[in-house]
Amino acid sequence: MKNLKVGLSIIIGALALSTAIAADKKEVPAKKTTHGEYKDWRLLSVSHRTDKKTLRAILGNDKAIEAARSGKTKPWPNGTVIAKVVWKERAHPNWAAAVVPADFAAAEAMIKDSKKYASTGGWGFGHWVDGKLEMHPKETSDTCFACHIPVKDNDYVYTFPALK
Amino acid sequence: MKNLKVGLSIIIGALALSTAIAADKKEVPAKKTTHGEYKDWRLLSVSHRTDKKTLRAILGNDKAIEAARSGKTKPWPNGTVIAKVVWKERAHPNWAAAVVPADFAAAEAMIKDSKKYASTGGWGFGHWVDGKLEMHPKETSDTCFACHIPVKDNDYVYTFPALK
Repeated sequence: MKNLKVGLSIIIGALALSTAIAADKKEVPAKKTTHGEYKDWRLLSVSHRTDKKTLRAILGNDKAIEAARSGKTKPWPNGTVIAKVVWKERAHPNWAAAVVPADFAAAEAMIKDSKKYASTGGWGFGHWVDGKLEMHPKETSDTCFACHIPVKDNDYVYTFPALK
Repeated sequence: MKNLKVGLSIIIGALALSTAIAADKKEVPAKKTTHGEYKDWRLLSVSHRTDKKTLRAILGNDKAIEAARSGKTKPWPNGTVIAKVVWKERAHPNWAAAVVPADFAAAEAMIKDSKKYASTGGWGFGHWVDGKLEMHPKETSDTCFACHIPVKDNDYVYTFPALK
């Protein structure tokens, strides 16, 4: 009888463990991410960079949203901050043709100050690190800016506000 | 002299017209869209439905955002409203591998009320028409719900909150 009880305990224990593993497998928690203040901002647009295999949300601070909604984005006003939040892509586990965010990859910033950042089209370039906005050093900013020159006619911004 | 003036006027007029046409070609305004209250909501996630050729932003009211950030989405609390804003896709004119929103297509809603919508998993289904939320009739709701049954384990919601 004692052996039966011990045996049953082992079986029950093994079942509990396998259930726990199954549950764990099903709900792999995403990496813990500290987002910056942009997580409370409103949306300007979204994009899917098929070359980089990333999905993006482009958010704006109040100044940016106000400018987008009133159509005054050529140029965007000083004080505008645009956040580009980037996630790696994955197929939705229940809908293969839906591309959805996997792990968080980066959050980049463009800050408009036509005097301070005159040499880079009036835009400062930075990124959020553990939720804190850090401006890029000059060399990195120059590299960022170079990529934005093709959209000079759109005040160096690739985003066309979609939700306005 | 009079003929010269008339001739110049015609040339200037033609130039002005061609400039106007060029400007018009360059900046074809998007269709005027009246968005609902969700345009001031915060972001839950984004997606690209490659089968439907649409990009989506999934936004939540305060109740939804609070639930997502505290990880209490199984089930989502009563009062949750999730908005799925859908745009047709297009290639970015300056970056062919970037898929970005073209015209606005639709804005769909899921509203959680476990008693009122008990027969459809606790969710009511609707959409915004010219900025106003209208609930779908029963037959349409049943069709919506049928598509959400595969994600029953995720409280019938396809979206995994990404920005939290």
